[in-house]
Amino acid sequence: MKGKEIHLYEKVADDLARLIDQGTFRPGDRIPSIRGLSRQRGVSIATVMEAYRLLEDRDLIEARPQSGYYVRRLYQQALIEPKLTQTEKSPTTVSVDELVRMVIRDSRNRDLIPLGAAVPNPENLPVGKLNRILASVVRQKGSQSISYEMSNGFDPLRVQIARRLLSSGCSLNPREILITSGCQEAVTLSLMAVCRPGETVAIESPTYFNHLQTLEVLRLKAVEIPTHPRYGISLEALGTVLKKNRIRACLLIPNFSNPLGSLMPDDRKKELVKMLARHEIPLIEDDIYGDLGFSPDRPKVVKAYDQKGLVLLCSSFSKTLAPGYRIGWVTPGRFQTEIERLKSACTIATATAPQMAIAEFLTNGGYDHHLRKIRRIYMRQIWLMTQAVGKFFPPGTKVTRPAGGFVLWVELPETVDARKLYELALKAGITIAPGPIFSVRQGYPNHVRLNAAFWSDKIEKAIATLGGLAEGMKR
Amino acid sequence: MKGKEIHLYEKVADDLARLIDQGTFRPGDRIPSIRGLSRQRGVSIATVMEAYRLLEDRDLIEARPQSGYYVRRLYQQALIEPKLTQTEKSPTTVSVDELVRMVIRDSRNRDLIPLGAAVPNPENLPVGKLNRILASVVRQKGSQSISYEMSNGFDPLRVQIARRLLSSGCSLNPREILITSGCQEAVTLSLMAVCRPGETVAIESPTYFNHLQTLEVLRLKAVEIPTHPRYGISLEALGTVLKKNRIRACLLIPNFSNPLGSLMPDDRKKELVKMLARHEIPLIEDDIYGDLGFSPDRPKVVKAYDQKGLVLLCSSFSKTLAPGYRIGWVTPGRFQTEIERLKSACTIATATAPQMAIAEFLTNGGYDHHLRKIRRIYMRQIWLMTQAVGKFFPPGTKVTRPAGGFVLWVELPETVDARKLYELALKAGITIAPGPIFSVRQGYPNHVRLNAAFWSDKIEKAIATLGGLAEGMKR
Repeated sequence: MKGKEIHLYEKVADDLARLIDQGTFRPGDRIPSIRGLSRQRGVSIATVMEAYRLLEDRDLIEARPQSGYYVRRLYQQALIEPKLTQTEKSPTTVSVDELVRMVIRDSRNRDLIPLGAAVPNPENLPVGKLNRILASVVRQKGSQSISYEMSNGFDPLRVQIARRLLSSGCSLNPREILITSGCQEAVTLSLMAVCRPGETVAIESPTYFNHLQTLEVLRLKAVEIPTHPRYGISLEALGTVLKKNRIRACLLIPNFSNPLGSLMPDDRKKELVKMLARHEIPLIEDDIYGDLGFSPDRPKVVKAYDQKGLVLLCSSFSKTLAPGYRIGWVTPGRFQTEIERLKSACTIATATAPQMAIAEFLTNGGYDHHLRKIRRIYMRQIWLMTQAVGKFFPPGTKVTRPAGGFVLWVELPETVDARKLYELALKAGITIAPGPIFSVRQGYPNHVRLNAAFWSDKIEKAIATLGGLAEGMKR
Repeated sequence: MKGKEIHLYEKVADDLARLIDQGTFRPGDRIPSIRGLSRQRGVSIATVMEAYRLLEDRDLIEARPQSGYYVRRLYQQALIEPKLTQTEKSPTTVSVDELVRMVIRDSRNRDLIPLGAAVPNPENLPVGKLNRILASVVRQKGSQSISYEMSNGFDPLRVQIARRLLSSGCSLNPREILITSGCQEAVTLSLMAVCRPGETVAIESPTYFNHLQTLEVLRLKAVEIPTHPRYGISLEALGTVLKKNRIRACLLIPNFSNPLGSLMPDDRKKELVKMLARHEIPLIEDDIYGDLGFSPDRPKVVKAYDQKGLVLLCSSFSKTLAPGYRIGWVTPGRFQTEIERLKSACTIATATAPQMAIAEFLTNGGYDHHLRKIRRIYMRQIWLMTQAVGKFFPPGTKVTRPAGGFVLWVELPETVDARKLYELALKAGITIAPGPIFSVRQGYPNHVRLNAAFWSDKIEKAIATLGGLAEGMKR
């Protein structure tokens, strides 16, 4: 485990950040000296110095000459985390309105400031390298690169994914992995494999609006489970729902959920698997943000604890490498045959050349190095955006503390209408994702999700503009 | 219409071929002299000479010194066309068995002689040119090439498709075209848009097995309509079915159907549109082979006669350019909003770089020149394979006369079991598509479809091997 030793300082920094975040050290408090922490943790002076430098980078602490390190007096001090979400308990027919389509459309409009859709910043993606690899593999593979690939996908890519899954706690045969047209197709095929129209799926609340759209087009019902902004869905609430309703499947984003950024702790993942196994309920696990954690350790997937083949783990390279390549995958567990049939019937196979390019990038392109870089960037930008929200948004605004990914979930004062704010922002050239599109019943009327994948003075100004607009609606 | 003048000789040749095929001129008959036909048709001597040269290339006629041109004594004379197919009249739940998956799997096995799946021969595709274009566009477009494209697709590609549709008789706004992951996704989304699970779709019989698979996974029922091997479905039979059943949609391949190669005449297309419009029934028109006709005129699509927006025209570049690019499209007519929502929910968008490459190829790559070349090749190979079947298959074997595409549908004597033949062929290193996978009730027990996209001595030998195997089953 060479990777771990290298990042010890990151672990130290992360632990300290957590203590600050939880209020053990408050703004203005002095934190342990370098020597003191070195002794406490049994790590070298150099490691602690590196950790403190990292925390300074993140604007979490500041050095005062002749005195030591202090927690900065942050804008964040005014920002409280949102509470556990509240939901209705009965199944609801899903109907996502026009607004989702507008937010998606906006996200492709390069004239707008992109705080809406959760798209990565291409400046942080290895565009040139990927495209050089693409050009090189198609030249090398010749006619194979324009021919149909197996429905299951390009073998070398499946091998690479299987290898990477080891760090998520999964030991799978490449044959148990099926390549799809992005994570979205993986989730769609999984839902088609385990549910019939009219049946009910348990989901987080709030949840990714495209999942709601998929449930809608597949004519499925949803029960929303209250979700903790830091630890994911309430297992207690899920347990109650399972007893009272015929739930056919669960669809969750346990690692760095969209939009909350929550991370389900390992023991809860274990408990979730047990609970679902008792009822023989499949879990569709969307791990699309799994590689984008702020802590050095890659979180385990729920699939790691799955012993009955009930977890369909879905992911893609759309958040980390190339959204436009549309390369995702699913490990279908006991639904392998069904998913293979669905893939073949719905799209025959995934585009060949992008599969080849990503396989090559994973093999020789320095994916881990790239991930370390972007995780650092997104952590920093989440931090900067949190500060900006604290500075410019009306008092009483609450904001999540994502453990990974690159989106912030913001709860504005109750008088602020998120749909209205969306419209006003659009007129000001800014796109945001309004809260109501993240729930079946269009709740979260005063919430917005902000994409922190981009950061610049222009973005900070956009946050200020949004704050001003929200302030105007507060009266 | 410059293109037409250039190909006048092809038209002359085609007309004559039709007369031969219909028996107006029989094997051994003398055909009109060059001078005579020039006078009859009012075309130049040079044009007729070119036409006769073409017919010689196709082994249809032969010159006898000092005597003139004669219809060759063809193997084909022993081969009769299959009759109008017979079907059951009541809706059937679709269930396509294991065999389909095996045929698809075989098609990716490069060690087998590929007479099974209808895959184009990469040697006839512009592999190098396409891949150079791909490399060049991604370099040029930079980050746009790895970013999400609009759900509807890359605009320049939609413009090119709209332009090409003019020759199919359609004048559409590029905005009415939506790019999909191959024709298969276009058909799948179309079925999802117009049908709900449990409803019934009218289809041709025999029909493309992947359509049957799609109906199955979407839990739709099918009524099979008898189909003429040369003119497509029986409108009379369809009319009767429409009166007796609640048909929610029609799914047809009017131009060069798979597997029959039939071409629905224009007046029947018109009648079909009228009939369906009366009942307000959507038609999903799969035109994937539409560019691969053997006659110089590109056939019209049924969509050309659609005045109510009821026809969802689906196609792709998988048979003509690059199956592995997975670029298809649909013109959804009145179901535009529904298809847009489905596309976004199921796969978000189609891969960006392959869309850019195909747009560029259509703009500057010489697509029409390429089409002329491969149409000529496939016409010739269909002819050669027909001859080989006539030579090596048991007496009593019947074979279609495809008007385009690159597959042959072969009816063997009743004692030959196509499933058994498939298994024996596989052991001999040859893959074929057995008849039963082309129908809901697994009919056509003594039929096979042969892919004529490949031709070589090895292929001819494979046909001989198949003939021997079939002969052995005849007893």
